[in-house]
Amino acid sequence: MKTITSTANPLYKELKHLATNAHARRKAGRSLLDGIHLCEAYLQHVGLPALCVVSQSALEHHEAAPLIAQCQAGAVSGIVLPDSQYQALSQVEHGVGLLFVIETPHVVVPAALTQSAVLLDNLQDPGNLGSILRSAAAAGIKQIYCSEGTASAWSPKVLRAGMGAHFILEIFEGVDLAALMASAQVPVLATSSYATQSIYQADLSGALAWLFGHEGQGVAEDLLQLASQQVVIPHRGQMESLNVAAAAAVCFFEQLRQS
Amino acid sequence: MKTITSTANPLYKELKHLATNAHARRKAGRSLLDGIHLCEAYLQHVGLPALCVVSQSALEHHEAAPLIAQCQAGAVSGIVLPDSQYQALSQVEHGVGLLFVIETPHVVVPAALTQSAVLLDNLQDPGNLGSILRSAAAAGIKQIYCSEGTASAWSPKVLRAGMGAHFILEIFEGVDLAALMASAQVPVLATSSYATQSIYQADLSGALAWLFGHEGQGVAEDLLQLASQQVVIPHRGQMESLNVAAAAAVCFFEQLRQS
Repeated sequence: MKTITSTANPLYKELKHLATNAHARRKAGRSLLDGIHLCEAYLQHVGLPALCVVSQSALEHHEAAPLIAQCQAGAVSGIVLPDSQYQALSQVEHGVGLLFVIETPHVVVPAALTQSAVLLDNLQDPGNLGSILRSAAAAGIKQIYCSEGTASAWSPKVLRAGMGAHFILEIFEGVDLAALMASAQVPVLATSSYATQSIYQADLSGALAWLFGHEGQGVAEDLLQLASQQVVIPHRGQMESLNVAAAAAVCFFEQLRQS
Repeated sequence: MKTITSTANPLYKELKHLATNAHARRKAGRSLLDGIHLCEAYLQHVGLPALCVVSQSALEHHEAAPLIAQCQAGAVSGIVLPDSQYQALSQVEHGVGLLFVIETPHVVVPAALTQSAVLLDNLQDPGNLGSILRSAAAAGIKQIYCSEGTASAWSPKVLRAGMGAHFILEIFEGVDLAALMASAQVPVLATSSYATQSIYQADLSGALAWLFGHEGQGVAEDLLQLASQQVVIPHRGQMESLNVAAAAAVCFFEQLRQS
């Protein structure tokens, strides 16, 4: 492990640029995994990172130490930073100072939609996106298709909320959802409070895709028209709608219950 | 409506203090509802606010104007602010400048838990809390009990995520959950990945309370021991757990499906 103590060090400056700039991460094709849980999940599901960054105080931490050792055994480049310098890279408060720099997975959008999946149209909130990824992974759904306007899946906030779901899923970004839906060999269901069929009446036992949209405006009207079916989550009471990540969880787990 | 243009105006200074300081809101027993949707929901479910604050540009806005008119017809005190001064009170970007100051509802914790409810132990994230309130209200659950360490339910972030659920629910804060559970006349269910009975096998058809905990650490062990029953949301795949608000939505709507 190489110790860096100067904030003028070129590698440190590059790390800081990656940590604070989404465009820089996209351009470099790299993502940052901040915190024990994400790093552990990456080692478990994917493998070794490109770079392992550790704060001075995390070197001896009982949860961080075995992960650092795993990186060292795999000859991963490692950097130790003074705590204050590490903190400038991190969005996690009071976290254990462990961060992986990884190659952002490059995935090619399949020619056709042939398995259970989630389609996200212009979803804005990183917390919602992360929660949806986590729920999908837990329900056994593998593919996530994000439209151009959807929040960036590999941002630190979404990674944190995803809790490692990123490493189990195939996440396609910048997808033309209309073209994908035209190619679909499985039904695509959208939720709508105007639908007459409930998710409990609908047959969710086979492979199918779910379409969710913008937190305020929902799914764009042209995409909604392309859906095979619209279904409603029956409510009781005076609340008109659910948070999109909550609605997605209800749908995914009803699908799993029926299957 | 009174127009204020000086940032030194005592009422404006008080508003700014309320908008930026949780302690000041608690001390004053007041909350701020920022944005059209929350103000509209308040008028619909509760009534008139204590004070109506409008930005200059919102005066003519087609969604804000009828709500302002409703306040004026009810002789509610009104203040008009230059847009820049309004923005200093608001956490909503690009929102329509309408804000209500309301009396935070003062509710007395019932002597016993006798109906369907949600118990929250040390839940941290405002977005999660708001989402849980919204899901509970949509599922027809009326009572929410928050422990001392749970995020403040009437903070601007939780209000925004709650989307008006606050005005339909009874929210009790600073509750001694152990004492409440000792008084419970309905079963209290906690989710646990170690439970053997699934939410689909459990009988959720009657009144019951759900217990959820801290995002990282879950429900405190002593409270978990007081639960009538532990149940699991069956997963598929390698993801070990759901976001707490997603898990809550799955539970609430399975309860509604069975009832």
